[in-house]
Amino acid sequence: MSIYIDPEIAVSLRGYEVPEKLGFGTAMAPVMFRAVWQDGCWSNGELIPYAPLTVDPAAKVLHYAQSCFEGMKAYRTEEGGAALFRPEMNAARMAYSAQRLCMPSVPESLFLDGVRVVTAHCTNLVPSNSGESLYLRPFLMGTQPDLTVSASNSYEFYVIASPSEAYHSGNMRLWIEREDARAAVGGTGDAKVGGNYASSLLSIGRLRERGYDQSLWLNPANRQNIDELSGMNFFAVIDGSLYTPALNGSILEGITRHSLIQLAKGLGYTVVERAVPIDELLEQIASGECSEAFACGTAAIISPISVIGDGGQEYSLPYTPGPVAEHLRQALLDIQEGRSEDTYDWMKAVEPVNS
Amino acid sequence: MSIYIDPEIAVSLRGYEVPEKLGFGTAMAPVMFRAVWQDGCWSNGELIPYAPLTVDPAAKVLHYAQSCFEGMKAYRTEEGGAALFRPEMNAARMAYSAQRLCMPSVPESLFLDGVRVVTAHCTNLVPSNSGESLYLRPFLMGTQPDLTVSASNSYEFYVIASPSEAYHSGNMRLWIEREDARAAVGGTGDAKVGGNYASSLLSIGRLRERGYDQSLWLNPANRQNIDELSGMNFFAVIDGSLYTPALNGSILEGITRHSLIQLAKGLGYTVVERAVPIDELLEQIASGECSEAFACGTAAIISPISVIGDGGQEYSLPYTPGPVAEHLRQALLDIQEGRSEDTYDWMKAVEPVNS
Repeated sequence: MSIYIDPEIAVSLRGYEVPEKLGFGTAMAPVMFRAVWQDGCWSNGELIPYAPLTVDPAAKVLHYAQSCFEGMKAYRTEEGGAALFRPEMNAARMAYSAQRLCMPSVPESLFLDGVRVVTAHCTNLVPSNSGESLYLRPFLMGTQPDLTVSASNSYEFYVIASPSEAYHSGNMRLWIEREDARAAVGGTGDAKVGGNYASSLLSIGRLRERGYDQSLWLNPANRQNIDELSGMNFFAVIDGSLYTPALNGSILEGITRHSLIQLAKGLGYTVVERAVPIDELLEQIASGECSEAFACGTAAIISPISVIGDGGQEYSLPYTPGPVAEHLRQALLDIQEGRSEDTYDWMKAVEPVNS
Repeated sequence: MSIYIDPEIAVSLRGYEVPEKLGFGTAMAPVMFRAVWQDGCWSNGELIPYAPLTVDPAAKVLHYAQSCFEGMKAYRTEEGGAALFRPEMNAARMAYSAQRLCMPSVPESLFLDGVRVVTAHCTNLVPSNSGESLYLRPFLMGTQPDLTVSASNSYEFYVIASPSEAYHSGNMRLWIEREDARAAVGGTGDAKVGGNYASSLLSIGRLRERGYDQSLWLNPANRQNIDELSGMNFFAVIDGSLYTPALNGSILEGITRHSLIQLAKGLGYTVVERAVPIDELLEQIASGECSEAFACGTAAIISPISVIGDGGQEYSLPYTPGPVAEHLRQALLDIQEGRSEDTYDWMKAVEPVNS
């Protein structure tokens, strides 16, 4: 598919300076990819200057949250180029999220075109310290101006990008969320859609006041098993083996989760995917059987968990970061940042384009 | 609070013609109200021409569905003016929805200013046939361009309007949704937020293919009791009494529901708010104890239910529309459209302004 490259982007890119203090997802790259779905087909994509969108006040996305997104990263390679980590998995997950909200899928080729062309033109913006990257945010939204509760008849797909640090640096203090839920059984928990995040904001606000960083969400069916953090999956090391909640329909299948399971097995760890009851885990932390716990995600990479708070009680993990988390984080980053052989064929190099 | 009136709106309003075929929520009035929240305070409101919004591609609303809305109506009065139905209840509900998603509340005075000024300038656009009205859609959205999962630090509040017919005309065929859920226990079901509607779109798409109009959502805790339809509450007439699901945290408290309960009691009906198990109701339909069922909502007013489908089976209601639904619908519309005395003080007249 041919991609239109707006000549204006050269100006935007030349004038852009990567900020010294990166943060996560706040400094936006000066270009974006766009494609439009109308009358049953996708337009060709275009790379244009980053600019405010024009959205009709009655657009479905603003009222009925008909939108989904992905999070992925381009890493700087040793040769000064850039590479994407398993982008086809993001394309597949976005297709799943789209169908869950009755949206047309973005074809894999269009999705990959979008993330590749943004990366190719922004190679100079990919930060080079370990753990930093160009965070890419593809998203799809329903734009039809119509207040009936029904699927939109028009959509826009964008890829925006942000030179970023890891989402969480340092140890995380989790709060077990026993009141609110981020998703329902039969809901949208396994799709990457806005509503899951919207419903988590109140919990995040509450726990921050109490000195915690993230909510630990329980399964909505039994309020007992661990599901995930918002935007991150959960792992614990128990008697030397890795445990992570099995996919159950309300957990988002993280691409980092998927990759870590494969990587850990390759490194000789036993990895168990099963229901992880929170009370059992708390006992295992108290008894020392659980030696470490961590969260993983594209944005967060691997973030060690130092404390799990439950009402008035706190359960401290003995090792933060623990040796297993450190081992896996390094092994993953070594592949992503091109220091070790990519035996799984996860990295997709992107040829830089200098505008 | 002083409201800025953009002089351009006179031009917009003069050039506007109410379409002959109204539909619901598709023809938008040519003006809108806007106020902005920044640095902890609300700006003054302004009435401006209806026009596309400029939204940053990284705005929270597009990614994390941080938005909530209201639905309300302005009715044409006998004197040719317009009146709003219980607007302070919409203001209160929007304040509740906002806090559920960590958003600042729109103060009641600002909310009422917004709906009043739009109505006042659009009085000529309020359609005059019974059941038609000017549908008003206040909405609030997080606009901060920042990809971290956290509450926005800036918001925009709008009121847009649409001359509309009732949302559903005629009898509705419902489908009992036994797989998907619109909201979780501990989720956002009792707040008017986009995610509830987004998660319902797939079900609506499926049931339309099967010849049904709306999903009948079950309570996410037990998958047995009736919660609501998307955007409408549920009532059944059993042995002459009205039954409606009691509020339980996953049902949106409809203002029409609230009003009908009061109105029905005033008209001598027994009204029971309690859990309504779907299997019990289906037996009561089969045995004839349940003589009618209907849905109610601001947009839908009262819409009789003709059939409830459950997998391969269909349960037909004997009376559609039934006498109780007809009686209540007429009593409600008589108040809303100014034909009977407003003993409950529900209607708030709005002085027309001719631009």
